[in-house]
Order: sequence, then structure tokens, then C-alpha cells
Amino acid sequence: MKQEISLIRGFAALRPGAALQPYSFSRAAPAPAEVEIAVTHCGICHSDLHLIDNDWGVSVYPFVPGHEIVGTVLRAGADVSGLHVGQRVGVGWLAGSCMTCEQCAEGNENLCRAAEPTCVGRNGGFAESVRVDARFAAPIPDVISSDLAAPLLCAGITVFAPLRRYVKENSRIGVIGLGGLGHLAVRYARAMGCAVTVFSMTADKEQSARAFGVDRFVDASRSGSLEVEAATCDFLLSTVPVNLPWAEYLNVLKPDGRLCLVGASPGDIQVPAIALIDGQKSIGGSAIGSNAEIRAMLEFSAAHGICPQVELFPMAEVNQAVARLRKNKVRYRAVLANEA
Amino acid sequence: MKQEISLIRGFAALRPGAALQPYSFSRAAPAPAEVEIAVTHCGICHSDLHLIDNDWGVSVYPFVPGHEIVGTVLRAGADVSGLHVGQRVGVGWLAGSCMTCEQCAEGNENLCRAAEPTCVGRNGGFAESVRVDARFAAPIPDVISSDLAAPLLCAGITVFAPLRRYVKENSRIGVIGLGGLGHLAVRYARAMGCAVTVFSMTADKEQSARAFGVDRFVDASRSGSLEVEAATCDFLLSTVPVNLPWAEYLNVLKPDGRLCLVGASPGDIQVPAIALIDGQKSIGGSAIGSNAEIRAMLEFSAAHGICPQVELFPMAEVNQAVARLRKNKVRYRAVLANEA
Repeated sequence: MKQEISLIRGFAALRPGAALQPYSFSRAAPAPAEVEIAVTHCGICHSDLHLIDNDWGVSVYPFVPGHEIVGTVLRAGADVSGLHVGQRVGVGWLAGSCMTCEQCAEGNENLCRAAEPTCVGRNGGFAESVRVDARFAAPIPDVISSDLAAPLLCAGITVFAPLRRYVKENSRIGVIGLGGLGHLAVRYARAMGCAVTVFSMTADKEQSARAFGVDRFVDASRSGSLEVEAATCDFLLSTVPVNLPWAEYLNVLKPDGRLCLVGASPGDIQVPAIALIDGQKSIGGSAIGSNAEIRAMLEFSAAHGICPQVELFPMAEVNQAVARLRKNKVRYRAVLANEA
Repeated sequence: MKQEISLIRGFAALRPGAALQPYSFSRAAPAPAEVEIAVTHCGICHSDLHLIDNDWGVSVYPFVPGHEIVGTVLRAGADVSGLHVGQRVGVGWLAGSCMTCEQCAEGNENLCRAAEPTCVGRNGGFAESVRVDARFAAPIPDVISSDLAAPLLCAGITVFAPLRRYVKENSRIGVIGLGGLGHLAVRYARAMGCAVTVFSMTADKEQSARAFGVDRFVDASRSGSLEVEAATCDFLLSTVPVNLPWAEYLNVLKPDGRLCLVGASPGDIQVPAIALIDGQKSIGGSAIGSNAEIRAMLEFSAAHGICPQVELFPMAEVNQAVARLRKNKVRYRAVLANEA
């Protein structure tokens, strides 16, 4: 087999925390089970900032971020079936997994210990193209435009999967934080037939929250505001990467309620054991979603007209977009677009 | 209606931490929805010790403990249906609940905020009789003898309910602590088709553990012993009322695993948020069980021949039994028997 090498243009951080610079790199043709995808759009996630800054100690420089990717199949390996060249697909946090462990066998690729992130150890979506295991490229429903589809691949699935897994219709869902994840969580929860309370530290987001379908907005920066909400929510989804008064939020749950974390809070969760036992409550995490859950999320989004609110930037203006995200100015997800 | 008053003999603590003394008290006839039950057997739970000692600040003296009760229906109120005088029944931690709240309406009386414990605010089972809401008296299957049935009403349901709720057959269950609750958890988990690892601080319980059907026994007092068990268990049930190295136990769970607390650990649970998100794990509590779950537990116990290992004491020797329990000498549940 002829080993074909392409030269790909993209944007990379050359050292931790650096501004992104134009960066070209070579890439071999797809392996038999892989596809190469011409990136048209790529969302910017907070995780990209952590990786640019090497906060998690796993970044390799030059580092090309990006894991909310939408594009078209450019080339497909010989063993790829079910995808064709020119097809519009999306790729999220994962670009591959072992496909042989207990978790992969059960369809939980997101829980595979050997799962391969799209922009850790390989170049991500802030580039002309990416190369991934074809099973991790999900067809995008026709009714969702590519710019709006991109954030669904990470922000969307991260909130959709736990709502689908843990929530019954007609529940009251509390969404903590109204950002890229939170605003999608509100829309999904509403479409699942739930009532939604938003807990936000930013009082001036109330109007947007109402527009997203929220019927209760709690300014969590106000002292005593959580106490008033005691025993009102069946499920709480924390989308914020900050430490919270965990015991106070447990108190917001009804009996048998679950507090689910998808925002990576630094430090420890600390709650009295009795606050979990008495009332039969739990605190748990949720980690993106499986390939099947990603497909279900895209179908659900298409069926219910759910999309993110985005700010669109040309890929060349990536540093402006990153700067706005660092300042928490983005409403509610930044998306980069390659030139057509 | 004639208000009939009985004089009941029992045993009570007259002040926090005191030895139990013979104590007689009067009791009105059952209300229309109530039954009076002649107690034949009553198990002794660690909660009884906490209540004798007023550790939870809710005990009223003279305090009559006892909430693992088996006996026969002595009198039934006018509205009671489905139970008849002379029928053998059991009563656990709860003797009543509001029956009107959301939780009661869904059959989760154990999560009712107004639920009435059998020996808090009323006299418990260390007596000739108790009076309870008839819906909280469960018929005991014929094949289970009364002395062995008694501990099922609290210890049994406390471990059966979370196993039934959260565990799939063919899982590996870790049981933390091999005491009154732990040894029943092992037997239930085995009967549900699960493999069981016991984590115990008492190495000399290994032989009993094997006899209960455990195939892995971990001496958790040995340094590094939990590390060896990394990612081996689908579900962990903590039955011990002590603080544990929670993050190390989370590490024993496979992805998507749940650590469930039924032993009331003092103080706070403390774990890194990332240990919950990465691997999609959770920590939660479980609170006894509903009336329906108690019936299911009794039927399951009868069908699978599951019973506790008990030490039987005449009711008059209650202080000897309590003393053995305080020294952690009981193997594995103490049961008091009234004279026939």
C-alpha cells in the first residue's frame, strides 16, 4: 500500500499558555479503519483552554486544540463501511478506543481506559483536517447546520447523556451554571418534558435563561438563595468548573435525588455522609458519552430543533475567540469556521 | 368507641447510656388503621445503641429500643384489612408515614419526611407489644422462623434494597464490613448471581466470609490492600459506621460504578471531583426500604433460604446482649426472645 502523506495547515500553541500560531504538519493516509475529515467547523471548549495551558500535564507541543468537529469525509480507509467520501460527520472528545475491553464491548467507549482523545497525543480540529477511527465519526442530521452542530459533539453530549440516563420526564431539573454546557442542558431538559431551575452566579443571565425555557432562575450569589430551594429538584447537573457548597446543593435535591457533575471542579467534594444516607441521595460524575449516545443526541437534537447559541469566528481569528472565552464573554459557545 | 388501655411490660433506658431496666407503660387500643403486635422476637441494631446513648439527640427517656420486630397480630383497628389477629408479621425501622406526600404516593414511605420511626417518639420492640400503622406490618413467610426473621426487618432490608435497586446479576459486589448488615449483604448478593469481595478490618473473619459464599476476602487493615483491588468491583456497599479512605475505595470501582453507604459514617465524605467524573462513578446513600421492598425482601429471603446468623437471648438478658454488641462480639446479629 502506498503511504500517502499530506501537509495539513492548522493552529497550534508552541508552549503552555501561548497564543495559537499558524502551524503545518504532515499526516499519513487513513489506516484501514480510519477516516480523514476535512474540518469545516470546530467549537472551542473550556477543555481546549486547559490543554493549551497544560493544566492537566498531558499536552504535547506544538499543540493543536479542537474536539467539537464537524466536516466532510475526505478519505476513508479500506475497511470503513457506513460512511462515504463527502458525507458530513462530527467528532467529539474521542477519536478512538480499544474496542476490546469490557466497557467497549458494552458500548461504553467513553469509559474505556485506553480511549484516545481527539486532541491529546494527536492533532485536533483547529486545522484543515483530522484523522479518526471511523466509528467515532457520527453522521450529522441534515437539518442541523454545521456551525450549530459542532458544539453538540462535546458540550451537547456531555449534558445530554446524563439527562437521558438519569432523568425521568416531568422531573424538575436544576442546572448549575448557564454557559456552553448549561444552556444546552436547559434546552434538552425542556425537550425531555422537564421543568428547569437554573442556578447562576451571574444575575444578568436571567433573561437569556427565560428565553431558553427556564421557569425558575436562582441568583446563587445571593446568601440564603439555595436554602429557599430546599427539596425542589429531582436532579442537579453541575456544569461549572468551580467548587460549590455541595451540602447546600444536596439539600436542594428531593429524596432519592442525584447531583451529577460534568464540570471538572478543582479539589475535593466534601459532604456529610448522613446527607447522602438520609434522603437516599447521591453525587456522581458523567463523562461525555458513548458513540451510541452521540448518535442518539444528534437525532434528538434534530427531532426537537435543539442547537446551541453560538458566536462564529473565522479560523484565522482563533486567538480573538480564545480571548473572549477566557474572559467568559462568549454567549454561549464559540465556533471556528474554516474558509469554504 | 371504648378506649381500652393496656399495661405493657418492656425494657427501657432511663437516661442516656444507661443499662436497660424493666419498665411498664400504658398504651391505648389501636386506632382504626393500626395493629397491636405481640412481640415474640426483636433484633438489636447498632441504631438502638445510638438511641440508648442519645447520639442523635432525638431520644426521649424512658426510652424503649427495638425496631427489628417479629410477633403476632394481637388486635387490629376497625379499618385494617389484609391482616388478621394471630397472623405473624414483622416491623422494621418505620411504624408509619404520612401516606400523602409525593414519596408516599410513589410507594417510597422510607423517604417520607414525616415518617415515624418505630422506637423514636414511641415505645419500640423491647417490650411485650408494639402498636403500628398496619401498612407497616409485613407478613412473614412460613418458612422463616421468627428468630431469624427479626433481623431481616432492618439489617436485611437495609442491604437488600440497594442491591436490588442498583445491581445487575453477574456483577462483582464489594461488601465493606462483615457484621450484621455485611453478612446478609453477602448472602443476598450471592443469591442475586453476583460474585462478592469482602473488605474487612478483622482478618479472622475470613473463614466465616468464605462460609457465607465470598470468593475474595481483603484484609483492609493491610497497607496497599485496596490498591491491588483497583477497578475490580461494579458496586461497593459500605456497611460500616466509620470513616473510610473514600478515594481509595472509588478506585476499587470499575467505570460507572457506585459506592453506596448504608452505615452512617461520622463526618464528611471527601473525594476529588475528578475521581467521580473520570470513570463516571458515584457515591450515594440508601435508607432502609419501602414497604413494598420489605415484602420483596422477605419473599426473596424465603425463596433463597437466606437468613442471618444470630445469637439468641431471652428478653430478660437484654443487657448482656447489648454489652456483647457494644464490644463487637456478636456473630452476626443479636436477637431477643420474649417468653412464649
